[in-house]
Amino acid sequence: MVRINGSKLGNSTGFVLFSGNSNRQLSESIAKHLGIPLGRMDVGKFPNGEARVEILESVRGKHAFVIQSTCPPVNDSLMELLLVIDALKRSSAGTITAVIPYFGYSKQDKKKSGREPISAKLVANMLAVAGADRLVTIDLHTPQIEGFFDIPVDNLSTLKLIADYVAGKKMDNLVIVAPDAGGVKRARHLANILEARLAIIDKYRRYYREADAMNVVGKVQGMDALIIDDFIDTGSSIVEAVKALKNHEAKRIFVACTHPIHTDPATQRLKDADCEEVIVTDTIPLAKEKMLDRITVLSVAGMLAETIKKIYSGESLSYLFHQHK
Amino acid sequence: MVRINGSKLGNSTGFVLFSGNSNRQLSESIAKHLGIPLGRMDVGKFPNGEARVEILESVRGKHAFVIQSTCPPVNDSLMELLLVIDALKRSSAGTITAVIPYFGYSKQDKKKSGREPISAKLVANMLAVAGADRLVTIDLHTPQIEGFFDIPVDNLSTLKLIADYVAGKKMDNLVIVAPDAGGVKRARHLANILEARLAIIDKYRRYYREADAMNVVGKVQGMDALIIDDFIDTGSSIVEAVKALKNHEAKRIFVACTHPIHTDPATQRLKDADCEEVIVTDTIPLAKEKMLDRITVLSVAGMLAETIKKIYSGESLSYLFHQHK
Amino acid sequence: MVRINGSKLGNSTGFVLFSGNSNRQLSESIAKHLGIPLGRMDVGKFPNGEARVEILESVRGKHAFVIQSTCPPVNDSLMELLLVIDALKRSSAGTITAVIPYFGYSKQDKKKSGREPISAKLVANMLAVAGADRLVTIDLHTPQIEGFFDIPVDNLSTLKLIADYVAGKKMDNLVIVAPDAGGVKRARHLANILEARLAIIDKYRRYYREADAMNVVGKVQGMDALIIDDFIDTGSSIVEAVKALKNHEAKRIFVACTHPIHTDPATQRLKDADCEEVIVTDTIPLAKEKMLDRITVLSVAGMLAETIKKIYSGESLSYLFHQHK
Amino acid sequence: MVRINGSKLGNSTGFVLFSGNSNRQLSESIAKHLGIPLGRMDVGKFPNGEARVEILESVRGKHAFVIQSTCPPVNDSLMELLLVIDALKRSSAGTITAVIPYFGYSKQDKKKSGREPISAKLVANMLAVAGADRLVTIDLHTPQIEGFFDIPVDNLSTLKLIADYVAGKKMDNLVIVAPDAGGVKRARHLANILEARLAIIDKYRRYYREADAMNVVGKVQGMDALIIDDFIDTGSSIVEAVKALKNHEAKRIFVACTHPIHTDPATQRLKDADCEEVIVTDTIPLAKEKMLDRITVLSVAGMLAETIKKIYSGESLSYLFHQHK
Amino acid sequence: MVRINGSKLGNSTGFVLFSGNSNRQLSESIAKHLGIPLGRMDVGKFPNGEARVEILESVRGKHAFVIQSTCPPVNDSLMELLLVIDALKRSSAGTITAVIPYFGYSKQDKKKSGREPISAKLVANMLAVAGADRLVTIDLHTPQIEGFFDIPVDNLSTLKLIADYVAGKKMDNLVIVAPDAGGVKRARHLANILEARLAIIDKYRRYYREADAMNVVGKVQGMDALIIDDFIDTGSSIVEAVKALKNHEAKRIFVACTHPIHTDPATQRLKDADCEEVIVTDTIPLAKEKMLDRITVLSVAGMLAETIKKIYSGESLSYLFHQHK
Amino acid sequence: MVRINGSKLGNSTGFVLFSGNSNRQLSESIAKHLGIPLGRMDVGKFPNGEARVEILESVRGKHAFVIQSTCPPVNDSLMELLLVIDALKRSSAGTITAVIPYFGYSKQDKKKSGREPISAKLVANMLAVAGADRLVTIDLHTPQIEGFFDIPVDNLSTLKLIADYVAGKKMDNLVIVAPDAGGVKRARHLANILEARLAIIDKYRRYYREADAMNVVGKVQGMDALIIDDFIDTGSSIVEAVKALKNHEAKRIFVACTHPIHTDPATQRLKDADCEEVIVTDTIPLAKEKMLDRITVLSVAGMLAETIKKIYSGESLSYLFHQHK
Repeated sequence: MVRINGSKLGNSTGFVLFSGNSNRQLSESIAKHLGIPLGRMDVGKFPNGEARVEILESVRGKHAFVIQSTCPPVNDSLMELLLVIDALKRSSAGTITAVIPYFGYSKQDKKKSGREPISAKLVANMLAVAGADRLVTIDLHTPQIEGFFDIPVDNLSTLKLIADYVAGKKMDNLVIVAPDAGGVKRARHLANILEARLAIIDKYRRYYREADAMNVVGKVQGMDALIIDDFIDTGSSIVEAVKALKNHEAKRIFVACTHPIHTDPATQRLKDADCEEVIVTDTIPLAKEKMLDRITVLSVAGMLAETIKKIYSGESLSYLFHQHK
Repeated sequence: MVRINGSKLGNSTGFVLFSGNSNRQLSESIAKHLGIPLGRMDVGKFPNGEARVEILESVRGKHAFVIQSTCPPVNDSLMELLLVIDALKRSSAGTITAVIPYFGYSKQDKKKSGREPISAKLVANMLAVAGADRLVTIDLHTPQIEGFFDIPVDNLSTLKLIADYVAGKKMDNLVIVAPDAGGVKRARHLANILEARLAIIDKYRRYYREADAMNVVGKVQGMDALIIDDFIDTGSSIVEAVKALKNHEAKRIFVACTHPIHTDPATQRLKDADCEEVIVTDTIPLAKEKMLDRITVLSVAGMLAETIKKIYSGESLSYLFHQHK
Repeated sequence: MVRINGSKLGNSTGFVLFSGNSNRQLSESIAKHLGIPLGRMDVGKFPNGEARVEILESVRGKHAFVIQSTCPPVNDSLMELLLVIDALKRSSAGTITAVIPYFGYSKQDKKKSGREPISAKLVANMLAVAGADRLVTIDLHTPQIEGFFDIPVDNLSTLKLIADYVAGKKMDNLVIVAPDAGGVKRARHLANILEARLAIIDKYRRYYREADAMNVVGKVQGMDALIIDDFIDTGSSIVEAVKALKNHEAKRIFVACTHPIHTDPATQRLKDADCEEVIVTDTIPLAKEKMLDRITVLSVAGMLAETIKKIYSGESLSYLFHQHK
Repeated sequence: MVRINGSKLGNSTGFVLFSGNSNRQLSESIAKHLGIPLGRMDVGKFPNGEARVEILESVRGKHAFVIQSTCPPVNDSLMELLLVIDALKRSSAGTITAVIPYFGYSKQDKKKSGREPISAKLVANMLAVAGADRLVTIDLHTPQIEGFFDIPVDNLSTLKLIADYVAGKKMDNLVIVAPDAGGVKRARHLANILEARLAIIDKYRRYYREADAMNVVGKVQGMDALIIDDFIDTGSSIVEAVKALKNHEAKRIFVACTHPIHTDPATQRLKDADCEEVIVTDTIPLAKEKMLDRITVLSVAGMLAETIKKIYSGESLSYLFHQHK
Repeated sequence: MVRINGSKLGNSTGFVLFSGNSNRQLSESIAKHLGIPLGRMDVGKFPNGEARVEILESVRGKHAFVIQSTCPPVNDSLMELLLVIDALKRSSAGTITAVIPYFGYSKQDKKKSGREPISAKLVANMLAVAGADRLVTIDLHTPQIEGFFDIPVDNLSTLKLIADYVAGKKMDNLVIVAPDAGGVKRARHLANILEARLAIIDKYRRYYREADAMNVVGKVQGMDALIIDDFIDTGSSIVEAVKALKNHEAKRIFVACTHPIHTDPATQRLKDADCEEVIVTDTIPLAKEKMLDRITVLSVAGMLAETIKKIYSGESLSYLFHQHK
Repeated sequence: MVRINGSKLGNSTGFVLFSGNSNRQLSESIAKHLGIPLGRMDVGKFPNGEARVEILESVRGKHAFVIQSTCPPVNDSLMELLLVIDALKRSSAGTITAVIPYFGYSKQDKKKSGREPISAKLVANMLAVAGADRLVTIDLHTPQIEGFFDIPVDNLSTLKLIADYVAGKKMDNLVIVAPDAGGVKRARHLANILEARLAIIDKYRRYYREADAMNVVGKVQGMDALIIDDFIDTGSSIVEAVKALKNHEAKRIFVACTHPIHTDPATQRLKDADCEEVIVTDTIPLAKEKMLDRITVLSVAGMLAETIKKIYSGESLSYLFHQHK
């Protein structure tokens, strides 16, 4: 269960960057920012579906960073990542940092009924048992997930990235909207950065016998509204939020979400939704057919490259993360 | 790090109930519900302040439950609990269940800045390393804390207890109020049980340059308001919420919190606050000088006794917990 | 990392049988043999592909058996199994036995080059960290894999099942054929049971400069040959063995393999192969389009049901396994 | 590293007693006291010296006790014990209790210089990693060794056994003698039981430049003296103590030591020593040629049998141990 | 449970010194010896008594030393230390060395009765689980406590410091006195350094029916006596030793103890005792009202500073410790 | 259970080489290749047989390599190695690499019957718990044993060494012979390197009622045969293979085995066997009386020295191992 890394030997202090298959574009973009090529590694599947990994260059004593979003197909992406970590460990890498821009299973961070797994904790234990020494990730669903780990976790935030982009649009009658109770803190923080108002979508029934209703708590009438969330999955809560805002006479509606999972029928829903723009990042690659005109993709590559460089050189990262707590 | 309990021997299937010193009244009340005496144990302090534990009856092969809220003095309560668990383990108890009605350090469940401990996780690791096999607790600050453990956790909820009590008051123009963003889910759930409306106190600045303001999101005017939270610490957020509700012309104001930590100056603040009643439970004992007339204490003893009985007899507990997620 | 099961409480000594989705027919067949229904559990996928588990009956203190072959889609089957185990652990099951009739990734039990994972060991560690207390499996690729675990492993063998079936055919001029060096021990053992001769396919090049050749080591001319292996994957080594035997003038050729993975183009290859019968078991379900006429499926359900019953009642299992070492 | 014992299944609650080869007489004597035969097990050595273990009866779900003193040849005895534990674990024993009447390496319980192992701690970790659930032992060299374990340890004392025997001799002008500073507590305790005086051998140099001298601290002149220690190894400190007592005109001299390691030239030294009787126990078997007339062997078999019975039936053991602290 | 430190990255090889609140004077003195300032850290308490830690400078990849005696209030001091360690670990410190000049709970290093904790072992496990990589401490109550750890422990000795000071007094008719059996080894060692005689206080009853008596074993009449012990707690055993020595007509009496816990009524007792001087060290800070004229405080700051420097530079420390074994 | 090495401090990046007693000649030969002396260490036995270790030079922060074959007396060799590792860990070595040229107990890598230990796994766990960070070994009995470890394992192969030696003999009508089914892969690989044919000894009974027979599968008549195996233990399977080859009219017979355990009566058997030459390596020292004229010893010292150097300098080792899989 314990890996005591025996490789911190000699004067080899280089670092190597490896990429799994889930988001190779992002990995290449990070590598370009860092001015180094991706490490040579053969990673794929056997015909029977088992993941297959072979590292094609020496990593003995080097600091290895493995970039892999655990986005759909989530179990394949996760297993691929774990096997790369195991291979690096057995190949005597100096340290192994898992860079997981989008951390799958993070929504399953608690039991909702009495007899459920806490899947995100299981994933955390799996990463530890495989041999990860450190985790770099972006916008975990809840900050408590950091506590699922006993290794250091650098949980970066995209709020500044999004805020900078939105600020460039010079909207000054802006209200930041949390699409549900869980997202109020994130929205509150962005509202602070942008000096905007706050509103909340309350999607529970007001009275038990009534049908479900989308209540908008806070004033939005005549204002530009920016819905902020950590991810778009099937898009249902986002589009219901858009509708509710329209019903309450918001002026223009924008949506900003870090992780574009965009599970069907998200693309159709976003196409149909009455909103101006959907701002996402490239933590998850968007297939061509999902790249609607109204989608703007901000890149996290620079942020991750800088993080990797600072981890390697031992500089402070604190200005980069925990901005929405 | 690993305790493999070697005591599951023979036909000894009894259970014993032990109590630390932090909340002996509650322990005795639980014992009375179960119709058994508390186990004999000498637990106290050496003159130099080190905790001291000696178990005075055989626990070999028995199922031991240790009841101890980790309330102030929190470090002493916690250390006492850990030493009792260590003593039970070394005395060959069959299984050890930590019953922690109030789980101290649970608010420190995430890093707020870049370089902080996640104290609740450390406490979870300490309980595991001491030898706890299972945890029974009440209203953890966030449900994600269950994921800090790899042992089974039964996280009971007092919402039904509070709802039953409030329902007896027959208020029918009731609004449930979350005192901040973090408490919206809890409030939403109670509102569902009581078929009441929801409002939220938004205590951030509306605009960056403005002074702090207590915004009430949702309608409260002319309504009876029940502020719900998991604990009252110094009472500042509760009394600011009361003020904000009064400013927005709520009719009568009630407060309900599971854990009455009541750190100074909470008692004075509650005395001065413009509210009808403060409903708490006995997870933490209230000193006489803190027992204001307006405080109502509901007992969790029955709920915990029933839980212990069901754990011992292997019956389902699911109707008792997770009601507010 | 450690689960000390706190549930061995009270007098609840029942057991429950749960099934994942990978081989539900087999699970139902086992349940029928045991005369009990499968435990109620909701296990599936969220639209985004994350596995989803909810156990629908109390398992508190019960002995839970989870039946799940980690066959293709292997990563999904594995993750489903791990989450069921995590849910059972957090729901206070008494003990958790993973019944994995076909253990995926078992062929990746060693490093072939210098920088590879040992995937089967990673899977073993993942099962342990999830909370499995014991493993029941069938025909592991190598017996050393038992040593990857520190929990008890019952590694059953199908050799007797296959031998009984073949014996019914009354072939008395029989040669058992190992399709490669790794399978010689298995073939030797079956030859002993059936009092048959042994031959080995040596598929390496005889001389370095020559092309690959299928050498048959041992006499097969004019004899009925039974190729024995632990699984059929894409079928290439099996059909090459068939060809080599034909070239060496074997009379009739039979194939027996425990685990019918039957990855494309296995079905076409088996259809085209010059053999009489392909004997497999139901550790992996065969889709209708893969059920060729020449395939005979022997069921392991009885063997697994008996194993589960004996584990529960604490009886010796030794006559059931390790028959081919 | 972790064994979660999955075998506490069914209604099998029997226990089995196994014996290694280091002290088979004692094991048989314990079995006779308990009225059961020793479990069938083949334990020995391969010609190349590797230990070899095969358990010949089912232990599934049973409570196994393994009796093995780790006396010379200490490494062989220890390895044999560890392999028996591993075999029991993998054979699904319910619980495994290591009964180690003499715990080898216990004198190496601290670092004496700066760069030494703490060998007794290593042995403790090895027992834990092999899968022992509990330890029963007798007269550990220091009681702190219990703290090297995280499993329950029952550290029995022979002081009462020895005291009863000595009391039968009706010496009433008795002084109990500690042979060095480390043994003062043990001697003090025996003196209390026997209502005798205390003396201490101080074997350091009085002044730095002087030669070594055996100083007797306390009055012994004209008195019967009983030297008490936990073991006799080469016998040098015991015979020097005898000489020092004679020099200080003690009347008759007796020696009592729990563990008769009797490494050469202990036997010759004891034969030559000017003492009446050497009282030992059978925690370590004495070869015939070491059985001097003046040696009296008290048996710990009854004490161990009673302990095993009480552990199995879950009764209190506290009156049996920790008598000399 | 496992921290694999991922921070040994880059060329950052600096070290930082942090101090908890229990003995800030000593920390500042050590820092001055090393010529560096203490690291910036905010450590204190929330109003409800929970410890609170925030590290105010980057520690990424640095070697962190945390200085904190776990002296009274012992549980608060300990919890503060553990949270600092957790914060350093999560902030990616390179290595974390706990420098605990006085190690609280070290007297609870064994079970005295059958059903007690081994508190010092629990504390050792807590330090390991929090993430300490190494321990530096002074004069552990027993050297076996080093074996409670699996991390390297540097257990320094103050005997040379005390011997140098005492030697400066040029007493040449000196007897070193152990106040009880447990302290004989320490006294023996100091006597060797100072070429002095040895005496022992034997505080048990000589005969069972007699009242307690303080027996002095060894000659002290007309000699200067130096009582040596590891700590003064309530002072009772020290003052009884002083009395016994006076009764046996010792000339002048000196007391030397490393750790001045000085729990009430120690100060009054020391004031009243018939002794010349009480020599202690600054491992625990002495409040002004406890600073009697007759108390001499020797500083361990130089010794700890040198140790830290040598650990950092990888030099041998062996001449600094283990001097009294 | 976890050692987080706290010693990677400062600029000390030297390495030290220590040798146990089992194969000191090899250690000295390796040291000579590396041009450094062996580290000073006192390692031996107490008279009672307990291993005794004291390291006589500072290892603080250094990279330590411990060379020790766990050859007979296997338990003594193993325990000595474990205690050296423990001492290095507690002396703050930077990293600890166990160099085990011959890995004892490696043949016990699986259960053969139902109730046996997996001894090689136990040894792996013991090395991990003692504190080894990495393992270097040669020709493990099966490559799966690497998976028993979670630390990096460098499993070197002697096939190239042997092939180079054999190639020097210019035999061109050569057949490589596996003495049993388990050795076919090794033989196949050597045959590939030497461009030779392959034959297999099949020592099972052809029919159940027949007596044991040594069947030679493959053509050997008139050819020079080289039997290849990983070790010679009592020599029985080797000499039976020699006989079988003679019976099948092989011309000259050579034997090559990496590890010369040479347990009695191996030497007599080899002397009597009808073979030209027995090629072994110096992973195990051969006593003078076992050094038959026909034995040729190839040295692995150069290979191990090169490996140690590359590990220390962080260079790729891949060309050195895994050549026979």
